[in-house]
Order: sequence, then C-alpha cells, then structure tokens
Amino acid sequence: MFRLSNRLGKQSQLRFYSNTYGHLSARKQSLIAQSGLYPAGFKASGVAAGIKKNKNSDVALVVSELPCSAAAVFTTNKFQAAPVLVSKETLSQNNDKVFAVVTNSGCANAVTGAQGIADAKKMRSIVDELTNQSLSALTMSTGVIGQNLPMDKIEAGIRDAYANLSSEHKTGWAKAAEAYMTTDTFPKLRSGEFSLQNTKFRMAGIAKGAGMIHPNMATLLGFMVTDAYVKPDLLQKALKYAVDRSFNSISIDGDMSTNDTISVLANGASNVRIESEGSDFEAFRDHLTQFAAELAQLVVRDGEGATKFVTLHIKGAETFESAKKAASHIATSMLVKTALFGQDANWGRICASLGHSGVDVDPSRVSVKFVPTDGSEHLNLMVKGEPEKVDEERASEILKMEDLQIEVDLGLGNSETKFWTCDISHEYVSINADYRS
Amino acid sequence: MFRLSNRLGKQSQLRFYSNTYGHLSARKQSLIAQSGLYPAGFKASGVAAGIKKNKNSDVALVVSELPCSAAAVFTTNKFQAAPVLVSKETLSQNNDKVFAVVTNSGCANAVTGAQGIADAKKMRSIVDELTNQSLSALTMSTGVIGQNLPMDKIEAGIRDAYANLSSEHKTGWAKAAEAYMTTDTFPKLRSGEFSLQNTKFRMAGIAKGAGMIHPNMATLLGFMVTDAYVKPDLLQKALKYAVDRSFNSISIDGDMSTNDTISVLANGASNVRIESEGSDFEAFRDHLTQFAAELAQLVVRDGEGATKFVTLHIKGAETFESAKKAASHIATSMLVKTALFGQDANWGRICASLGHSGVDVDPSRVSVKFVPTDGSEHLNLMVKGEPEKVDEERASEILKMEDLQIEVDLGLGNSETKFWTCDISHEYVSINADYRS
Repeated sequence: MFRLSNRLGKQSQLRFYSNTYGHLSARKQSLIAQSGLYPAGFKASGVAAGIKKNKNSDVALVVSELPCSAAAVFTTNKFQAAPVLVSKETLSQNNDKVFAVVTNSGCANAVTGAQGIADAKKMRSIVDELTNQSLSALTMSTGVIGQNLPMDKIEAGIRDAYANLSSEHKTGWAKAAEAYMTTDTFPKLRSGEFSLQNTKFRMAGIAKGAGMIHPNMATLLGFMVTDAYVKPDLLQKALKYAVDRSFNSISIDGDMSTNDTISVLANGASNVRIESEGSDFEAFRDHLTQFAAELAQLVVRDGEGATKFVTLHIKGAETFESAKKAASHIATSMLVKTALFGQDANWGRICASLGHSGVDVDPSRVSVKFVPTDGSEHLNLMVKGEPEKVDEERASEILKMEDLQIEVDLGLGNSETKFWTCDISHEYVSINADYRS
Repeated sequence: MFRLSNRLGKQSQLRFYSNTYGHLSARKQSLIAQSGLYPAGFKASGVAAGIKKNKNSDVALVVSELPCSAAAVFTTNKFQAAPVLVSKETLSQNNDKVFAVVTNSGCANAVTGAQGIADAKKMRSIVDELTNQSLSALTMSTGVIGQNLPMDKIEAGIRDAYANLSSEHKTGWAKAAEAYMTTDTFPKLRSGEFSLQNTKFRMAGIAKGAGMIHPNMATLLGFMVTDAYVKPDLLQKALKYAVDRSFNSISIDGDMSTNDTISVLANGASNVRIESEGSDFEAFRDHLTQFAAELAQLVVRDGEGATKFVTLHIKGAETFESAKKAASHIATSMLVKTALFGQDANWGRICASLGHSGVDVDPSRVSVKFVPTDGSEHLNLMVKGEPEKVDEERASEILKMEDLQIEVDLGLGNSETKFWTCDISHEYVSINADYRS
C-alpha cells in the first residue's frame, strides 16, 4: 500500500524547518520527545504545504499498513467544523477499517458553509486514492476560523506527506507533530511500550494546543495510535473514559473550539487483542488514560503565554461532577489566572470563583491551601471558612515555582478530581490580539 | 439630625485629592460629572481614612434627612461578603426607615469569617449612633478579599464623612463617588430630574467597577437615591426590573464578585408618591432602568484596561433568556475580547463562542455583522451560516472606533437583547497581576 517509489522520488523535497526550539526554557525543551517507541505498522509524516504564512509545516499524515478499528470524541460546539462533521460521517460508516488520520494546521475549515464540507471530503478522498481504500481517513483541521482551505496547497501537501511517510522518529513522527502546531511553542508527541496478554504493545500520540482550550464532553486536536487491537465499541468506551480524565480536565482560556477532536486508531499489529470487557480491557483503558493525561498536560504546559502549570485538586465534593464543575470554574477565572501570573497570593479570588461556580458550597466548610510541588510543607490560606494569617513571604516562595498545586476542600463529601490549568499573561493577550496578522 | 456643629468643626480637615483626571482620554474625561441635579434631602461625602495604601479617599457616606424606603439586589455568589449579609439583615428588619448607605473601598470584608460580620455590623452601628436611628444604614465594602477591615480607620473615617456631608456636587457627591473607586480610573456619578404626577423629582446614583464584573441575578457595587417616594415592595420590583436590563447585562471579565450590591433609597422629599402599580409605577421604573443602564455602561467604559466599548445586539432568539445567555457567553470569551483589543475582524471566534454558549443554535441560520456607531453602513461577516468575503480594510476601519456594535441574528425567533462589554488588554493583565501590591 505504501508507494515507496513515490516516497524516494520526493526525498529531495524535504523542507528545512526554521522552527527549532533553542529559545525555549530548559523546562519546555525537556518536554520535547527526542526519540520514541512507535507502534508497529504505522508511519507518519509532516510537510510544509504553504498554508501557514510563516512557511512552517502544516500538513500531517499518519497511515497504518493494516486496517484499524477507530474511535473519536468531538467538540460539542454547535458550530462544528467541516472536518468534524466529515470525520463523524466516516466513523459512522466505517469504524473498523480506517487507515489514516490527515490533518492540516493554518486554517480550521470551520464556519465555512457548504464549501467547507466539500473541502473536508476532498481531503479524505485524496487519502482514499493514495491508500486505495474507501472512507479511509479521519480529517482534522486547525487554525483560523471562517476561511476556506486553499485546496491546491492542501492536495499537493497530502500527496507530499504520503510520499514522505516514515516509521522513524526524526523523519516521521517528529515531523507530523510539528505540522500540528499553531501557536504551540513545541511539538507534543508521546510514545510508549506496555505489556498485556504477555505481549508487548505500543502507543503513540500527538496533541496540539494552545488557545481556545476548554474542552467539554469532547476536546481539542489530537490522536493516539496503538498496535494493540481493540474492538471499535470498546475502543470508543476506553477513549471516552480516558478523555474525561485527561483532555476534558484542562482549561487554558475557557474558549471551546469548533474543531476539537481526539481520535484513536488500533491496528492490532502487536497481537494484543481486546475483544471483550474485563481486566485486559481495563488495563488497556488505564494505559490509554495515563497516556492521554500526559498529552493533555503537555497542552496546558504550552498554554498560550503561560508561565505556570497549575494543578487544581478539588476534594471533599459530594460528587465527581460537582468537583469537576468547581475546578473548571476556578480554572477559567481571569482573576485567579492573572493573580497566578502576578505570583500574588490573592486566594480570595479562588473563593469568589468557587462561590460563582454553580456548585452548592457552604463557605463555613471550605478550606484552601497551596501545596508546593517540591515536597516542602503546604500553606493553609483558609480553614473551614476562616481566613488564616497568611505568611506572605512563604506564599510568594511557593508562587515563584513553575509548578503549583492548589487544594480546595469543600468539606461536603468524599469525591475529588484533579484539573490542570495555567495562568494568563500579557503574552496571551498579544498572541490572540494579533493571531491573524 | 445632621450635626452641623461637628461638620463645621472638621472643615479644616478636608483632604487634598491627588487623583485628578488630566491623564485620561478626552472621551473618558467627558464622562465625569462636573455638576448635578441631586435629590432633595440627601447629603453625601467621601473622605480618605487611610484604608487604601495610596491615600485616596475610601469612605463614602450618603445620608437622607427623611426616612427612606429601601430596596437592594445582592450577589448570588455563595461566598457573600459580610456587608452583603448584614445589609440583607437590615433590609429584612427595616426596609422603610433607612437613612444611609455607608461604603468603604480598599478592603472588601469578604471571606472574613465571624470577625467580618462583627465589623460590618459595627459600621452600621456607628451610623446608627450618628443619625440617632436604629438599623439605619446599608453597608457596602469593596477591595481585596480575605482581609479584615482596619476598624479604627473605618470608624474615624465614618465619623469624618458624617461631619463632612454636603448636598453640593463638588463638596459632597463628587467626593462620595471618588471614595467608591478601586481600579476605576474615573468616578461614576449620575443625576437627573424627571417629572411624574405633575411634580418634579430627581435621582442620583454612584457605581463602581472595574474588575470582577459579571453580575448574575445581582450585580456590582452601586446605589441610587431619589426624592420620589416609592413603597418598599414596589421599589424592590422596579429595582429588579432595572437591574436585569442594566447591571445584569454587562460583563468585563466574567468573574462575579462576593460583594455585588445595588441599592436604591427613596425619601419622598419631592412629593412624588408611588404606592401602587400602574402607569406612574411603570414610568418611574423605566426612568430607574434608563438611569441604571447609564451607570452600568459607565462601568463597562471604565473596564480594567479596556480600549473598546462593545454593544452586543443579539436578535432572532427564541426567548429573552436565550438571547441573554448567548450574549453573556460571547461577552466573556477571552478570544473575542483579545481580537477586539487587536482590532482583528476574527469573527469566527464570535461563532465559536456562540456555539459553546449552551443556547440552541442552528449554524445555518446565524448571521453576524459589525454595525458602525458613526452611522455608516454595516458590514456583513456571515449571512445564514455562509461566510462573506469580508472587506478587511472596511472591517479594520470599523474596529478602530472606540464604540462598536456587533449584531448576531440567530434566525430562530423574535426575542432580542443588548449586552455591553469591553475588550481585554495587556493592561487588564497588569492591573490584576499586581492588584494587591
């Protein structure tokens, strides 16, 4: 199925990438995958098709040699983008013989009317032609909303990407991850090897941020692939579970995209086969969840303009849902986020946001503390509704750390959740004021 | 009731105010009241009691010579501040013989536990002593959350304010409005004369912003006074109606305060008396609504760091509530607000936010346009779900204007609403990162 002749023929066209990462902090650089253990039977590529003005790579393709079972979750935004609608159609007609995920950045193909649907279908049919399959590809687009795709560039890009598919880290996966980036400052690529049924299997995944991130029910742009085989209905179930505990538990700016999509393809090349519920299914699901959480956290760490990675730990809630609702509300408070940016222990804003979250709260039972991530002692800010005399020097010490945990105990029950978010800085405003320029 | 001897005895202590407004734009300066027509029987004052670090005035007092009927709406935040709880108690026990509103800025007395309640009651009892009445004052506080009031300064400030009460603009009302300010860049004071029952009556009002502004059911800090008499239950009804169409239709940053309070006192000094429903009541209610809308819009115009005053006009909704829900969601989108700051016609973000608002939307019926406030022709951005080829030059021309109207037609029904908001700028981030410093 892979047209190797084409691929070799176009090797000379490999782009020079100007987006190296030497300017990033050491912390961020350490998050960029330098190698990987990729699932058998998958190849990946990323090329620059000229959709982005800055000439960075903007078309990614991942193709499996074997047919895959496929599952996906999508944005619940009423303005679902054309690639979302088309991918839904693909899955409803074919969720056990999917071969590819094709993605472009630089243009979201969202709010593009009838032309948008035709363009997304065209992306799929180009892959169908290349793989000699039918309904073979899930489509994803990210970038500016309200503009049509430049289809000449897209078509040439997909053909170029197909010709350059590789199973290697540097020439394949790393390039695909780069083609996902919009305002992201680094590519988000993870892979790993696990064991089930006395057999090793692998997973790989790519995600992107970095703004319009506040998934709900569905999530942002990303995919995972594995060489385990998982029946489509079980794959969907595992994905839903994983996403609820990963991509649906993050917020950067409270805005939900029109394009949010997370998909997973499972091609079975590893001989791990999961065809029924039970302990194997649960083990796979938990691996997928851990994997998704790691990718989701990468998205938050690269939040537009973010200087802090904040874990909100909500405890003592009556239900998981109320804990998550409270967390989501606090995570989107502009005043909480700007105080974190200012390294200001203005914890009253956490209470104000909690009180406005719609969750039933009894102020006299609420406790709030900072939990330092270096293992040093926590700092109580409020205990059961009574404010503490806060040691401002110690608070400031904790707030200087890049990673921070805030613990809010509602004092009402035994449910809890963790939610990941970041601060809002001047840079966030700059990035989004000038996004289309 | 006014202890004129005290008042004259303290004239020498009048503060020098360093907060003049020469540095503001001509537009903002034009919004500062230079004179007024104030209701009979009311006096006002504002003094610097040393609560604010910058020594600006921070205690305001408004006192009526006659007993007033009183009404108020309060924040629905679960963490209601002590002054809110105490004012509620005052109104529940005495809504027809209220004499005063006492306010401090610089400290919100919110999330302050049992001590906070005692302090708010103490503010009220100081006014009781000065006016020789019982449960005579509504209390309001604004500023940092989670810190206790400096009661020595508060007490001296209230006594000082009482001694300096004046019915004049410059020595009374303008000073009270200044004492309400926190991050506000100008005082928000309005007054006017109306006619009912062949009798003239007046209203005056003060409001404050400028952050943590996203009222819901209740609203931010402000009050209105009138020399009409309106029965307490009707006054409450008129206030609820007015606030729904004014203070509850604005958002600066999506954060709801713990202290939101709008109250109205009616002392009847004008001989206008409204004791039953009917056309007089409705006329009064509509005056109050207009008046409240003007004050609310002043709050948005002075939104923290705001450079734009944006009217969202949602049309074609199935209900008033769904129109308002859509408006509120769009008004709080960080991406819409940063695009407005950047003067970028990134209208897709408006659709993305609408689609995430929870309102039932059919994308193929939605139209979006910019309506210039200079009377020139509107610019279609999307018509019934299909994107227009947007004239970017014209869009940029419109986005350069300080005042902007965005019209979103849902194409589903006949209900509509207007909602006022502003952009989010670097300055907003600076103000809120460093708020307590």
